[in-house]
Amino acid sequence: MASGHMILSAFFFNPQGDHRLSWRHPCSPRAEIFDLDYYRELARVAENAKLDTIFVADHVAIWDSVKSGVAHYANARLEPLTILSALSAVTQHIGLVATASTSYYEPFNLARLFASLDHLSKGRAAWNVVTSAMDEEALNFGRDGTIEHAHRYERAAEFIDAATALWDSWEDEAILFDKASGRFANPERVHRIDHAGEHFRVRGPLNVPRPPQGHPVIFQAGSSESGRNLVAAHVDVQFAIIRSIEEGLLYRKDMNERLARHGRSPDSLKILPGILPIVAASAAEAAEKQEILESLMLDNLAIDLLSDGTGLDLSAEPPDGLLPELPDERTFNGVRSTLNKVRGLASQHHSIRQIARKLANTGAVPIVAGTPAEIADQLEAWFVSGAADGYNLMFPVLPEDWTNFATQVVPELQRRGLFRTEYEPGTLRERLGLARPANRFAAARDESRAVPEHRY
Amino acid sequence: MASGHMILSAFFFNPQGDHRLSWRHPCSPRAEIFDLDYYRELARVAENAKLDTIFVADHVAIWDSVKSGVAHYANARLEPLTILSALSAVTQHIGLVATASTSYYEPFNLARLFASLDHLSKGRAAWNVVTSAMDEEALNFGRDGTIEHAHRYERAAEFIDAATALWDSWEDEAILFDKASGRFANPERVHRIDHAGEHFRVRGPLNVPRPPQGHPVIFQAGSSESGRNLVAAHVDVQFAIIRSIEEGLLYRKDMNERLARHGRSPDSLKILPGILPIVAASAAEAAEKQEILESLMLDNLAIDLLSDGTGLDLSAEPPDGLLPELPDERTFNGVRSTLNKVRGLASQHHSIRQIARKLANTGAVPIVAGTPAEIADQLEAWFVSGAADGYNLMFPVLPEDWTNFATQVVPELQRRGLFRTEYEPGTLRERLGLARPANRFAAARDESRAVPEHRY
Repeated sequence: MASGHMILSAFFFNPQGDHRLSWRHPCSPRAEIFDLDYYRELARVAENAKLDTIFVADHVAIWDSVKSGVAHYANARLEPLTILSALSAVTQHIGLVATASTSYYEPFNLARLFASLDHLSKGRAAWNVVTSAMDEEALNFGRDGTIEHAHRYERAAEFIDAATALWDSWEDEAILFDKASGRFANPERVHRIDHAGEHFRVRGPLNVPRPPQGHPVIFQAGSSESGRNLVAAHVDVQFAIIRSIEEGLLYRKDMNERLARHGRSPDSLKILPGILPIVAASAAEAAEKQEILESLMLDNLAIDLLSDGTGLDLSAEPPDGLLPELPDERTFNGVRSTLNKVRGLASQHHSIRQIARKLANTGAVPIVAGTPAEIADQLEAWFVSGAADGYNLMFPVLPEDWTNFATQVVPELQRRGLFRTEYEPGTLRERLGLARPANRFAAARDESRAVPEHRY
Repeated sequence: MASGHMILSAFFFNPQGDHRLSWRHPCSPRAEIFDLDYYRELARVAENAKLDTIFVADHVAIWDSVKSGVAHYANARLEPLTILSALSAVTQHIGLVATASTSYYEPFNLARLFASLDHLSKGRAAWNVVTSAMDEEALNFGRDGTIEHAHRYERAAEFIDAATALWDSWEDEAILFDKASGRFANPERVHRIDHAGEHFRVRGPLNVPRPPQGHPVIFQAGSSESGRNLVAAHVDVQFAIIRSIEEGLLYRKDMNERLARHGRSPDSLKILPGILPIVAASAAEAAEKQEILESLMLDNLAIDLLSDGTGLDLSAEPPDGLLPELPDERTFNGVRSTLNKVRGLASQHHSIRQIARKLANTGAVPIVAGTPAEIADQLEAWFVSGAADGYNLMFPVLPEDWTNFATQVVPELQRRGLFRTEYEPGTLRERLGLARPANRFAAARDESRAVPEHRY
């Protein structure tokens, strides 16, 4: 770690919190989620705690392949770039991580939005690259179904290449503002990118000068083989799913090897496991909080999710009966890890309802429940072992859990010297200990290599 | 006019002002144009004057078909949606008009960005629809040249249709937030749009609830036959080029006839001619200000523009010599009105330099120069005659001319009862005297017509 302390990123997908039905929690917001004041207050709390970033996840569709999803799930949410642009005006230090899809955007438009946000925020913009796996998303963009996995990642790599070239298309010294001579820009420092790939043709240059950070920081969450390779080639911060120190150390080792193949040092990639912190005064209170969360789940939604996950139609089965025979794994066309989890639960003779609720209430990332000191203990252990550079904090219920973490766990981490007590000056990239990327066009000239033809 | 006073919209394309080389003016900003504080101050001044909107124009390319354009023209500019999202956090009343292209965006993404901005700003978002005519723009989006004019307008109409359907896809009462029963939404009030047209296929629904304004206000500037038809079918506010009261009245009459064909009343379209106000203490000072503006033009840029406008290569001709023979109008492949303007100047034996400067310094919209009272006289005359519902104010040099208008002309208009002295409560749409659009899905049900199949 450049600065010697952990990175803390406050995340949300559902603005009500990261439990699937957190919107039902007595403390979660209702229509406030469509009001800027709600996000303004989250940002104020996060910046007060000196957190590194606010990270807004996203989909470009509502989730309706699961039958009762529209009725029971909080599908409606604001768009991250607009929220974070608004927050750039009322924050000063915190990083602003917006999710955007390489499958359903054009590189010129997205490079421009992020370059612009980076200027407006004085170097605090970050882009969480997603490839949008849902069929529901594909159908909103003229496709009949989602793009095949490997193809999505190829497209993402090409997209990032075009976007970073656009960010480089105006060198840092390109603009002269020389009123007397009338030279606004030095044409030799402004470049067409002439990108012509499998998925995109983009001439450039961008019509925004180079972002303060050179390139906005790039986040990605992929952990498949293609995901890891994309991260090793192009990404600054990885949102990872890690369940133990051992797993984290193995993951780091694997990523370091992949980084090396791209000539990158381990330091150039920050790995942030996702965790779900539940702050409580005692173990009993923590358990009670978890129980309340689990009680939010609805039987019919859970059973529809189980139908979706197993390929069985369970809507007419008695909920307290046993599960019918599960499909053969070898010919199963869905997520096999889900099927196997269900098979394990079914073998214990749980009812359909019990299996469904169990499955629906199991999140992807570890829950870290306890007192502020207990939570800090675990965050410290993973961090000092090298299994994590910091954490992507996914709160079960907003704003409560976000505020509890910021006001109770952060001070504990600060006391232990594990987290900053004041923001360091500079850009987000600098605070994360990431180098400012060299400009590919300037670098080509400096190394006396063939410089792309100057057309201006 | 619903509210009995004129509409005033403060416009910029170049953030340095609307003269082509305003960036060279001694009072214009340099790197401040990439800093949010610059826009924050413009917004503060505009909102203090109770102006209706801030209108940010845009291109999605730098302008480089004219040889010296990159060196001398201020091509670099931030993206409007990010600027205006940021300003939504630091303003309370003023409308936020962002320009975005129907030729180079996807309806789902753009509908979502505007819906989100409309929520964040509590009903102050407006979309200036452009169809992006420049070849430079096409080349950034995988095309070899710009889409043919009629085709661009067809695409724009289809795009607006899809976007407005997405805004309607959640009815106003769709979200229930019923924590006890677990019903987040009423599935019968959430609709797929199943748009399948010539240019787009979009299933929907959007994943943002219906915007506070129903639909964000739609601006458009087209005045060609296809432009006028698009406006009559889909647009709320037109930015028009009008040079006299007579022209304005004819334009209004023509548009009223077109509106009637779509079952729309004259009141449902506000027409705002563009004007370039230059506030001065005296006629002499106004003339001096105009001279300074004209002096900003550079000979080589002006001559390159003349080459571009005539199809002649004038770069090697002596600037003080006469113009070579102009191309035959009948076979000319450029803008004929420009060619004819040049022919008129050439017939007066002006030199290449003189013709080039004259042409380069002529803007598209009328200059209204004078004392605050003189400017108010002209604005009043056009407004009371019915030739204009208000004005799109294009300032030669920012921030100076913007501030002068806001602090000197607006008070004069207020004294005359022609402009508001306080913001009326409500959304931008309400303040502009525009009805909130009916929801097409709700309307179909209310009229007991065939309702699009409910899938949820």
